[in-house]
Amino acid sequence: MQQYTPAKWQTWERFYRANFINSLTGFKSASLIGSINEQGVPNLAMFSSMVHIGSDPALIGYINRPVAAAPHTIANISANGWYTVNHIHSSFLGQAHQTSAKYPEAVNEFEAVGLTAEYLEGVKAPFVKESHIKYALSLKEIIPIQLNDTFLVIGQLEQVWIDNALQPQKDGFLALDQAGTICSNGLDAYYKTELIDRYAYAKPDQPVTKLEAL
Amino acid sequence: MQQYTPAKWQTWERFYRANFINSLTGFKSASLIGSINEQGVPNLAMFSSMVHIGSDPALIGYINRPVAAAPHTIANISANGWYTVNHIHSSFLGQAHQTSAKYPEAVNEFEAVGLTAEYLEGVKAPFVKESHIKYALSLKEIIPIQLNDTFLVIGQLEQVWIDNALQPQKDGFLALDQAGTICSNGLDAYYKTELIDRYAYAKPDQPVTKLEAL
Repeated sequence: MQQYTPAKWQTWERFYRANFINSLTGFKSASLIGSINEQGVPNLAMFSSMVHIGSDPALIGYINRPVAAAPHTIANISANGWYTVNHIHSSFLGQAHQTSAKYPEAVNEFEAVGLTAEYLEGVKAPFVKESHIKYALSLKEIIPIQLNDTFLVIGQLEQVWIDNALQPQKDGFLALDQAGTICSNGLDAYYKTELIDRYAYAKPDQPVTKLEAL
Repeated sequence: MQQYTPAKWQTWERFYRANFINSLTGFKSASLIGSINEQGVPNLAMFSSMVHIGSDPALIGYINRPVAAAPHTIANISANGWYTVNHIHSSFLGQAHQTSAKYPEAVNEFEAVGLTAEYLEGVKAPFVKESHIKYALSLKEIIPIQLNDTFLVIGQLEQVWIDNALQPQKDGFLALDQAGTICSNGLDAYYKTELIDRYAYAKPDQPVTKLEAL
């Protein structure tokens, strides 16, 4: 094994260090957050830090970088209280990645990258029409992380839309591999996935057991 | 598209709802957190909520469920200040899943599931010897999430160990698919991954571009 310590990575060139540290934490989701500003300009941006906070109530968080680095999404969410999260599929991966470019606030990223804004009843923010699995959140809390001026933004799940061909399995599970939802790692790498196994709920006095296909 | 709303999922059976809500947020890492209590009993538990907080300083967070539901890891980290995060590979996926069983505090999960605790110089917590990519964190902050009594636990990266065969690419990127690191979804599903593409840093005035293989 090779050991790495802060004394080593602090000497690295900035992008080398960012690639290394960002890819170390493992695979993650990459989703498009849709929001809209007070002038009515939609915003679309990729985030790879969605995190499950709880199921009842259904709370979902993401990490927003410092305001100077990523100002628009968090400003829109703060002002409007609503936002959407849209799964990314390989069919529009390039367009999704392009939303990470630093467009000025007056630019509508849906138009700039070639995706379609879709407004659905009851949600004051745009969805991505091309996405097969998407949901709307209402802002519950923005928790500042003072260590590095980032934010944990927490929303409550208010509405979910799932393509008719991708409905939940018998136990509620969504087979995201069959939906072609991509996963990501580091700053710029995207993957397709293949199911290894599902396992039964683990108990101390029982051997580990694979779930039969549902 | 099929629509789902809170009025619908609040009527669902608890595990159906948990499967649905947990799988909705997308693919995620699944890692083993190693810690040790004040009596010297090691603890090993799977967490699927690792989240990158920042690269400089290198800060990594995870969500700990309410103390009543998941008491040992957060208590050990609070008391000791150190913990390890260990990638899971398909070669020991069953053992890793079994750590999610609710063992009493006096049980050493390494022994209970058949993994090997490894103590490396400078880190006051056990690593998983079988893991090819692992790192140590020192606790920086535990942020309570009052909405549902969970916690965002943030550590600073202090030491990284990577198998000699899996060293960083020319730009610092770690090819986790080649490491056989698994990814997860929902409560119990595990996947292998296959690279689709890496993309170049996106700029507003340039078309989206795939990175050449490094």
